[in-house]
Amino acid sequence: MLKGNMVIGQSGGPTAVINQSLVGAVLAAREQEAITGILGAKHGLAGIMAEDFIDLTTQSVEQLEEVATTPAAALGSVRLKPGKAECEKVFEVFKKHDVRFFFYIGGNDSAETAHIIAEMAKSENYDFCTMHIPKTIDNDLRVTDHCPGFASAARFVALAFMGDDRDNKALSGVKINVVMGRDAGFLTAASALARQADGDGPHLIYLPETTFNVAQFKADVAAQVEKHGRCVVAVSEGIVDADGHPIATSGEKDSHGNLQLSGTGALGDTLSALVKEALPAGARVRADTFGYLQRSFPTIVSDVDAKEARDVGTYAVDHAASMGENGSVAIKRESSKPYTSSYFVTPLSTVAREATSMKAEYINEKGNDVTQAWLDYVAPLVGDLPKMGRLI
Amino acid sequence: MLKGNMVIGQSGGPTAVINQSLVGAVLAAREQEAITGILGAKHGLAGIMAEDFIDLTTQSVEQLEEVATTPAAALGSVRLKPGKAECEKVFEVFKKHDVRFFFYIGGNDSAETAHIIAEMAKSENYDFCTMHIPKTIDNDLRVTDHCPGFASAARFVALAFMGDDRDNKALSGVKINVVMGRDAGFLTAASALARQADGDGPHLIYLPETTFNVAQFKADVAAQVEKHGRCVVAVSEGIVDADGHPIATSGEKDSHGNLQLSGTGALGDTLSALVKEALPAGARVRADTFGYLQRSFPTIVSDVDAKEARDVGTYAVDHAASMGENGSVAIKRESSKPYTSSYFVTPLSTVAREATSMKAEYINEKGNDVTQAWLDYVAPLVGDLPKMGRLI
Repeated sequence: MLKGNMVIGQSGGPTAVINQSLVGAVLAAREQEAITGILGAKHGLAGIMAEDFIDLTTQSVEQLEEVATTPAAALGSVRLKPGKAECEKVFEVFKKHDVRFFFYIGGNDSAETAHIIAEMAKSENYDFCTMHIPKTIDNDLRVTDHCPGFASAARFVALAFMGDDRDNKALSGVKINVVMGRDAGFLTAASALARQADGDGPHLIYLPETTFNVAQFKADVAAQVEKHGRCVVAVSEGIVDADGHPIATSGEKDSHGNLQLSGTGALGDTLSALVKEALPAGARVRADTFGYLQRSFPTIVSDVDAKEARDVGTYAVDHAASMGENGSVAIKRESSKPYTSSYFVTPLSTVAREATSMKAEYINEKGNDVTQAWLDYVAPLVGDLPKMGRLI
Repeated sequence: MLKGNMVIGQSGGPTAVINQSLVGAVLAAREQEAITGILGAKHGLAGIMAEDFIDLTTQSVEQLEEVATTPAAALGSVRLKPGKAECEKVFEVFKKHDVRFFFYIGGNDSAETAHIIAEMAKSENYDFCTMHIPKTIDNDLRVTDHCPGFASAARFVALAFMGDDRDNKALSGVKINVVMGRDAGFLTAASALARQADGDGPHLIYLPETTFNVAQFKADVAAQVEKHGRCVVAVSEGIVDADGHPIATSGEKDSHGNLQLSGTGALGDTLSALVKEALPAGARVRADTFGYLQRSFPTIVSDVDAKEARDVGTYAVDHAASMGENGSVAIKRESSKPYTSSYFVTPLSTVAREATSMKAEYINEKGNDVTQAWLDYVAPLVGDLPKMGRLI
């Protein structure tokens, strides 16, 4: 029976509920005899390589519960796709500290990291169990029905569009809102939940899964303005042209060598300029880029998301301690009405590396909206939304 | 005793609670014998000139209460600084429809409009009472302690910075957040409420009331990065250089002929570029422009703000019906701890036209932060904020 210390870390972009997973795992670990010490790695792999840990056995439950409802990543996060050398260093540190359990909360890159280290342990016959705990607002992990962190960000997006559509109705014009999601349109698509009555926006939704055609975009917006006297547009930051190139970026690259999409207004401003070309002079056109608020706004949390994020943390630890088997925790949707779900473990290799994106059945034929199937999928995750009152 | 129909309209930028004022006024008017009909003007003055009204005596209280908690402006809004011709047209419509009471919910321009029409009525001996009901997220009206709409937007800004600061702590770098407020820094200054512990951001706050010096800005950011390894910056969209010129805009002008500040990422991207010049190559610098979310995000509402917005609507109608006297409703702060307030009526001329801005005592000497006096002023308006949990 596996027994020893555990390390837990957080990786990648923050979410509103990633700390729920952390606290779920820590509280579960405190109950497990197999787990002797609980080390929190500061800034994920970076902290492990630097042996920069905090002891997670000493905090009061009250403090941990405060952490659980706080967005971002309480241990600190890191953007690091480790190479073999980094993984070897991590494994060395694990051996040095008698670490037998490793829990890594993150997306597909984190699953890949966990996978590599698990393979190293296996090849050295080092008794070790590693679990990937899923997290991403992008909702792009394979196998799982959906990813913890997504539904809270989706709730923020839905609420933002609900309010912004009322704003646009009060002072007409074209409003373009740029939503996070480099390769997957799930979060942008959640904007459709803002619609409560005929004529409500968003009137157009553009996702990275479909080719963004500038001429079609201009025609689409002009047609909506003709129909409604206004137009609210949801656009993913990751939209690409027929050659797969981004429509506009700041030109900066992030630490993964990817073009920087978030944290700049470049795309919104470019799209505004295009819309102005398509409309009569003086048309009111505005663009907002929701930016980091989507992933770390306090108090805007989906109840389902908070519960599931907590549960996958707990489940990972309980599974590891009782089964000693590597894997990634996944969510199975048992029913949408009423919404119920269960958890299971899938091999790391099924989640690692490659991500997924919106199914074709969730996107309309024209590629400028979502389908009812999408709404049926996403609505129960996001939860009830306030009803917008109206007079005109 | 004045008796006849009333018209109510909404003007200017939406807020989260402007519909509270509308519903407060409508429900109060339904109780007043002096008020025979209640006409809602669609899109403010534009609707009055077009005689485009809706009857506000027929909706259920339930429907009105839904409207009250919905952001934006349920009657539609308008950006129109009317000239004499427009005011004459409005007055003509009022006479035609036996309108004896006019309630205009808006900022200083709306107070000015109400003032002009009141003067017209006086000069023609037309028995008439007009009340301005204050509303602006900018908090820049004279006489009143603060403006309905401000505290809810301030709450959004405070929460956004709380979450974004945790995000920045998890993944270090420089983060610049651009906040609304063309000439007044109140909303940007509310970001200071996000600080709960030593080292919390925002680490720097720049307001339109002080000259923005690019060299000083770069030095300030570099010093904060040196100290904290990161830096979160709050910047008003209205910051200006020593000549009073905006630091960066999209070059577009709005319907008032003002340079467009909101609905573009131009300033944030410009400031990002400046910060990159001040830091070592490869520094992680991001900018978000909060945009319209600040003023119309559903569910993020200050309790004090919602109550006061409702109250000023009710107060305006009751005052008009009982006193028949023109004016603008203002809020008097009776006490900050515990927070209590009362209402009074101030002459339209004291609120109309000119706006106000942050007092000097609210801004630190260096012009890159706020003072304790500011926090004492703003905290009770925004209300309790969730405590951010932390581990490192």
